[in-house]
Amino acid sequence: MHAKLPHPFDEATRVTAGDSRWQGHTSDDYWAFVGPFGGATAATILRALIDHPQRAGDPLSLTVNYCAPIAKGAFDLDVRLVKANRSSQHWCVELSQDGGDVATLATAVFAERRPSWSHQVAKFPDAKPFEQTLPFPKIAASWANQYEFRFVEGEMRTGGMKAEPDSAYSKVWISDRSPRTLDMLSLMSMSDAFFGRIFQARRELVPFGTVSLTTYFHTDADELATEDITRVLATADAKIFHRSYGDQTGELWSPNGRLLATTTQIAYFKA
Amino acid sequence: MHAKLPHPFDEATRVTAGDSRWQGHTSDDYWAFVGPFGGATAATILRALIDHPQRAGDPLSLTVNYCAPIAKGAFDLDVRLVKANRSSQHWCVELSQDGGDVATLATAVFAERRPSWSHQVAKFPDAKPFEQTLPFPKIAASWANQYEFRFVEGEMRTGGMKAEPDSAYSKVWISDRSPRTLDMLSLMSMSDAFFGRIFQARRELVPFGTVSLTTYFHTDADELATEDITRVLATADAKIFHRSYGDQTGELWSPNGRLLATTTQIAYFKA
Repeated sequence: MHAKLPHPFDEATRVTAGDSRWQGHTSDDYWAFVGPFGGATAATILRALIDHPQRAGDPLSLTVNYCAPIAKGAFDLDVRLVKANRSSQHWCVELSQDGGDVATLATAVFAERRPSWSHQVAKFPDAKPFEQTLPFPKIAASWANQYEFRFVEGEMRTGGMKAEPDSAYSKVWISDRSPRTLDMLSLMSMSDAFFGRIFQARRELVPFGTVSLTTYFHTDADELATEDITRVLATADAKIFHRSYGDQTGELWSPNGRLLATTTQIAYFKA
Repeated sequence: MHAKLPHPFDEATRVTAGDSRWQGHTSDDYWAFVGPFGGATAATILRALIDHPQRAGDPLSLTVNYCAPIAKGAFDLDVRLVKANRSSQHWCVELSQDGGDVATLATAVFAERRPSWSHQVAKFPDAKPFEQTLPFPKIAASWANQYEFRFVEGEMRTGGMKAEPDSAYSKVWISDRSPRTLDMLSLMSMSDAFFGRIFQARRELVPFGTVSLTTYFHTDADELATEDITRVLATADAKIFHRSYGDQTGELWSPNGRLLATTTQIAYFKA
C-alpha cells in the first residue's frame, strides 16, 4: 500500500495558513512561459479565501488583476475581509513577493446562496460526446499539459492568418489530465484555461497576457459536489481586438447540462 | 447671458481633489430607491481616478463591488495606485462614509493603448434608427429619468410572469435625457443602466441589487471623442438566474457601428 499523492493541482495551489497573511509557491507544473498560469494563481487566491477561518458562504465572483509578473518561488497573500454582511462577504487579496510591489490584486464576493426561482436562460451547447473527441496534442507550456483539451469546435491552429481572421469561438471539453473531481478551485482555474482568442483569430502565437479576469459562479460547493464530474464543456469567444487589447467571454458547463460558471477577461496582445 | 449650468451627471459624479483621499456626494438626481444608482457610483469612482494627478493612460477595465448601501450624503474615496508599469496602472478604491465600513470596493486598470491589429468580431446589432423609436415612459427611480431609453427590442413589461419566462434580451438606445457628449464616465454609468434582467424575465419588479459589475473599455478617451455622440445602442442579456443570484452581460455600441464597451454583472434577487 502507498499513501495517495496529492493531485498536482492541489500541490500547485497549496497555501499555508495565516490570518491576514498567507503563503503560497509557484508551481513548475502550472507554468506559462514567463510566469505561473493565471488560472492557478486565481485558484490559489481562491483557496486562501475558502480556507480562511472567517470565510462564510461560497464563492460568487472573483476578479483577478494581473499587475506584474510573478517570479518562480514563494509569494505572500495579504487577505483582507473588507466587509461582511448577513449573507455575503467582500474580500480583497494582494499577492506580493519578498516584500515587494503587488503582483496580483484580487477582489472576491462570497455568498450564502438561498433557494430561489431558477431559470437557465443559456442553452447547453450541442457537442459531440467527450469519448468521440480527440485530445489536443501536448504543447510547450507546462500548465496546458495538466489539462486535457478535446475540441468540439474551434481547435487552435497555427500557420499564419489567411485573408480573413478565423473565428474566435471555441467549444472544448476540459478536464484535468490526471482526473480530479471538479470543485470551485478547479472551476476557477479552468475559467482561465482557454487559449488566447487572438492566437485563434490570427492562427499564430503572439505576445499575450491576461490583464483582468472575472469569473462568476452559478453553483455552490455542495451543488457542484452533487454533479460529481471531472470535466466541463466550455465555450469561449471574443468580441473585439483593438489597440493592443482584446476581450474574451466564456461559459463552463457540467456535462449534465448545468451552467456552472461564466467568465470574462481582457488581455494585452502585440500584433 | 447666463453661465452654462453643469450637466446633472457631472454634478452627480463630482469629486473634490485629494491625493489618496477624495470626497464625493450622493445625488438625488441619480437615486435608485434604496441607494445611489450604481452606475453613478461607478462613474464617480472613475472620475476620481481620471482626475488623479498620478493617472496615466485611459480606463481599460473597472470592477465595482457593491458591499453595503450608501446613505444620502457625503462619502470618502480612498484611492490607491497599487502598481504602475510602463504602460499600465492598477488602482484600488474604497468608498466609505463617516469613517465607517467600506461600502464600495473597486479595482481599475488604466492603459496607454497603442496602435495594433484591429478586428471587431461582434456585429453591430440591427436596430431601428433612434428617431423611429419611442422614449420609455418615466419611472419612479430618479436615476432612470436622467436617461432616455428607446427600446428596439425587449422593452420591460410588468403584469406578472406568464407560463414561460420572457426573454431576458434587450436592445435599447440610451442617451442622457439632457444631451451630453459621451465620455468614459457616461459610458461607465450607462454600462449599469439596464433594468434588472430578472424584472424582464419575470415581468415584475422584485428585490434586486447589483453585487459586482465589470466593464471593459474598447476605446480610449481621444478615440471616443472623435465619435462625438450623445447616445449608445446597447444590448443586454442574462444566462442564468439561480439560488438568489443572476448574471447580466451587455454591449455598448456607437451609432457609428463601433463596439465601445462590454460589461457584465452579477446581481442578487429575491423571487
